[in-house]
Amino acid sequence: MLTDEQRKRVCVVLVRARNPNNIGAVARAMYDFGFDELRIVNDYPVPFERARSAIDAEAVLAGAREFAAVAEAVADCSLVVGTTAGGKRVHEHPLRELAEGGGLVHEHLMQAEHRVALLFGSEKTGLSREELTHCHWTMTIPMFDRDGARHPSMNLGQAAAVCLYELARTTMPVAAAGPLLAPAEDLERLTVLLGELAEVSEYTRRHPANSGDGLLRRFVRRMQMEPADAAMWMGIVRQALWKIRTEKTDTQNK
Amino acid sequence: MLTDEQRKRVCVVLVRARNPNNIGAVARAMYDFGFDELRIVNDYPVPFERARSAIDAEAVLAGAREFAAVAEAVADCSLVVGTTAGGKRVHEHPLRELAEGGGLVHEHLMQAEHRVALLFGSEKTGLSREELTHCHWTMTIPMFDRDGARHPSMNLGQAAAVCLYELARTTMPVAAAGPLLAPAEDLERLTVLLGELAEVSEYTRRHPANSGDGLLRRFVRRMQMEPADAAMWMGIVRQALWKIRTEKTDTQNK
Repeated sequence: MLTDEQRKRVCVVLVRARNPNNIGAVARAMYDFGFDELRIVNDYPVPFERARSAIDAEAVLAGAREFAAVAEAVADCSLVVGTTAGGKRVHEHPLRELAEGGGLVHEHLMQAEHRVALLFGSEKTGLSREELTHCHWTMTIPMFDRDGARHPSMNLGQAAAVCLYELARTTMPVAAAGPLLAPAEDLERLTVLLGELAEVSEYTRRHPANSGDGLLRRFVRRMQMEPADAAMWMGIVRQALWKIRTEKTDTQNK
Repeated sequence: MLTDEQRKRVCVVLVRARNPNNIGAVARAMYDFGFDELRIVNDYPVPFERARSAIDAEAVLAGAREFAAVAEAVADCSLVVGTTAGGKRVHEHPLRELAEGGGLVHEHLMQAEHRVALLFGSEKTGLSREELTHCHWTMTIPMFDRDGARHPSMNLGQAAAVCLYELARTTMPVAAAGPLLAPAEDLERLTVLLGELAEVSEYTRRHPANSGDGLLRRFVRRMQMEPADAAMWMGIVRQALWKIRTEKTDTQNK
């Protein structure tokens, strides 16, 4: 079971949720299972007053914070998990069933400085491909496949309730804390630097299929980097960039 | 995991549900987790047309049956389980947490002729004392108690989703195989290339403490790389090396 302190290090991030009732329902589920930190990524101001669907939800909604982009909303989190309805989407990320994913989130929270973000996409489309590139892995609630029928997709408020129930419930065998991992903002900085290096070194031109922000972003997040490792990668990449640019200038000056 | 046949022997009974949206939400959760049999106990005709809140819910709602009393609704069931929000109610019945209750429901369904009824009460008051007398035992979703705050109570649609998820969920966690990781020879090649890049880009000169074969070797091995990722890192590093050396030669030739 998660401790009170561990629950405080979990945040729920709603990306482009359209229906205020659903936002209210997610807030209520958070209250019910003891989670407080709600973050909202939307390109328009969220009508919170319409989301106050339950007394229980008010405390959580009152503390909700709005962000302009996923990268900002998850910047302080060392594990970012995207939820998906499964179905036919091609998974470029490891996809885990909720029960297994819940166990991994627990494991991650054993390390006292780790924060976890749990992302939910819009009701209609879920998380976009670009939004998913910010995730370390994805998680799905196993649903029932009916022959020939369309794949079920859960209501946002219900999906959040099921995920938070599972997170609150999972009992982990006592395990040692794993290594401290780098927060998303470091990984994003490395992603940007690596993108520059790929560009400047002409890697992008030679291997266009291996390029693109999303690909590099996922690539960096698969590495499970500790903060010092992320710093070292950045150091190496920065140095290579510097060297390439210096030599280039020399060449041009002569 | 419940078999298809076992799922058909579970029915959800809504007693005095007042909000058609909640009835629709329960139907949708049933569809999502593979349960078909919805029974409704109400002293007034249920406005099903207003309950059609989701495409997924329609098939379940279309087959719903109405009953005048709990006794009739559960007549063919050998196990009747009442759900409750817990809190301060005096429990005249054994009260079980959802995970334990779900296990007992599974056990009950092992016997091929058993049917199970899962009762949910009205949004405001839950199941009455009288209604609970029809139950063999009661089940509650464990929620988070905040000191001094009122006991949380779940939204009906969310509570049904959580209960049905727990019933449908695999009882024995099945460990999935982890990802295939890159062989040592790839990691070693990357280590050597990275060493060259550190040298050529003058990273080594600037950060002597971060250099040395052993350090880079451990650094590369901490990343848990899959083969394709190792190949991609090598590609990027090789390209940066090529670029630095090319520019250098250009400089010298001029």
